[in-house]
Amino acid sequence: MKKISISTRSRTELIDVTHQVAQAVKEMGISDGICYVFVPHTTAGIIINENADPSVGKDILMELNKLIPLDDGYSHLEGNAAAHIKASIVGSSVTVLVEGGRLCLGTWQGIFFCEFDGPRSRQVWVKVTPDGPSGGHIG
Amino acid sequence: MKKISISTRSRTELIDVTHQVAQAVKEMGISDGICYVFVPHTTAGIIINENADPSVGKDILMELNKLIPLDDGYSHLEGNAAAHIKASIVGSSVTVLVEGGRLCLGTWQGIFFCEFDGPRSRQVWVKVTPDGPSGGHIG
Amino acid sequence: MKKISISTRSRTELIDVTHQVAQAVKEMGISDGICYVFVPHTTAGIIINENADPSVGKDILMELNKLIPLDDGYSHLEGNAAAHIKASIVGSSVTVLVEGGRLCLGTWQGIFFCEFDGPRSRQVWVKVTPDGPSGGHIG
Repeated sequence: MKKISISTRSRTELIDVTHQVAQAVKEMGISDGICYVFVPHTTAGIIINENADPSVGKDILMELNKLIPLDDGYSHLEGNAAAHIKASIVGSSVTVLVEGGRLCLGTWQGIFFCEFDGPRSRQVWVKVTPDGPSGGHIG
Repeated sequence: MKKISISTRSRTELIDVTHQVAQAVKEMGISDGICYVFVPHTTAGIIINENADPSVGKDILMELNKLIPLDDGYSHLEGNAAAHIKASIVGSSVTVLVEGGRLCLGTWQGIFFCEFDGPRSRQVWVKVTPDGPSGGHIG
Repeated sequence: MKKISISTRSRTELIDVTHQVAQAVKEMGISDGICYVFVPHTTAGIIINENADPSVGKDILMELNKLIPLDDGYSHLEGNAAAHIKASIVGSSVTVLVEGGRLCLGTWQGIFFCEFDGPRSRQVWVKVTPDGPSGGHIG
């Protein structure tokens, strides 16, 4: 796997990592396969959404912060229970098809690391598995 | 990959695509492997849930619409911020095991395309990767 | 695939299945690859989050129960619509990289089966696909 390092700067923040993931795929030299992007943290997650208009990411964060308030009578005493809950909802990994050495994303799609308990040093793990001999490529 | 085309008819709508995905798997002729189902859109998602009683899908949509209102002081000016947020929460892909040429789904499970900003022409991308020589099939 | 059986004891409950999944990976004897963990139910899900402090799981359940109330004017008449909605939000599967025969999880990460309509007998399906000959392992 390849490990991408990220420094987040706010408590909650979306960071576009599409370029770094695409670069990792390129460096692995695999033309056709599946790309797995995994976040090894419990107070951060990863999503695929629009990266053209930055207001989309702002709205996603705002609404998640509204739905899952920072303080809500939580049992966990470290002050970051909301971050754990948000991470559970958005998930720890995304999967993207790879063809011709490139991530198969829709026109408006980008990959966002979701910081819910920053600022911190974080990682994103990327692995690409190549298609087998029979390929999975018909059609 | 195989591309399935869908025409949605409402602003928010769940569409059962289990049959089309199963058909794509069959056409690829791969007996054992993993099936990836990916939605290349930022205002639509994909889930696995009950497809026996259509009221389940109605309830899922109703509750998501309640949690993430159409208007909520969003920054994104295209009027579909709620759709981006819902897509981020349900996710852009599902993964299903394939054995004997068939999707391994539980008795009540179906695959639903989730339209959150329709009606529109949409796509669902399907890829199946075959098990390698050592199979991953013990047990 | 390997099938792990679980008996849940409450209506809503998180059950740490990390050890069973790791054990299944070990028994399959695959050193490097991808591990897919799939829940074949429509009122249960699966997440990756902290398994050190049990209060984290309690908070995740509490907040999901608050966001998606047991009764909320649902159409589905079996009394478990909320469970279907929660399952759709957290998702039916997780994917974890495997290296050296071990699950690549972050320090604080564990895999939790999420019961939303128990108590019941449940299953978790695990499959590991080995890396192909070219490996996907550079870096």
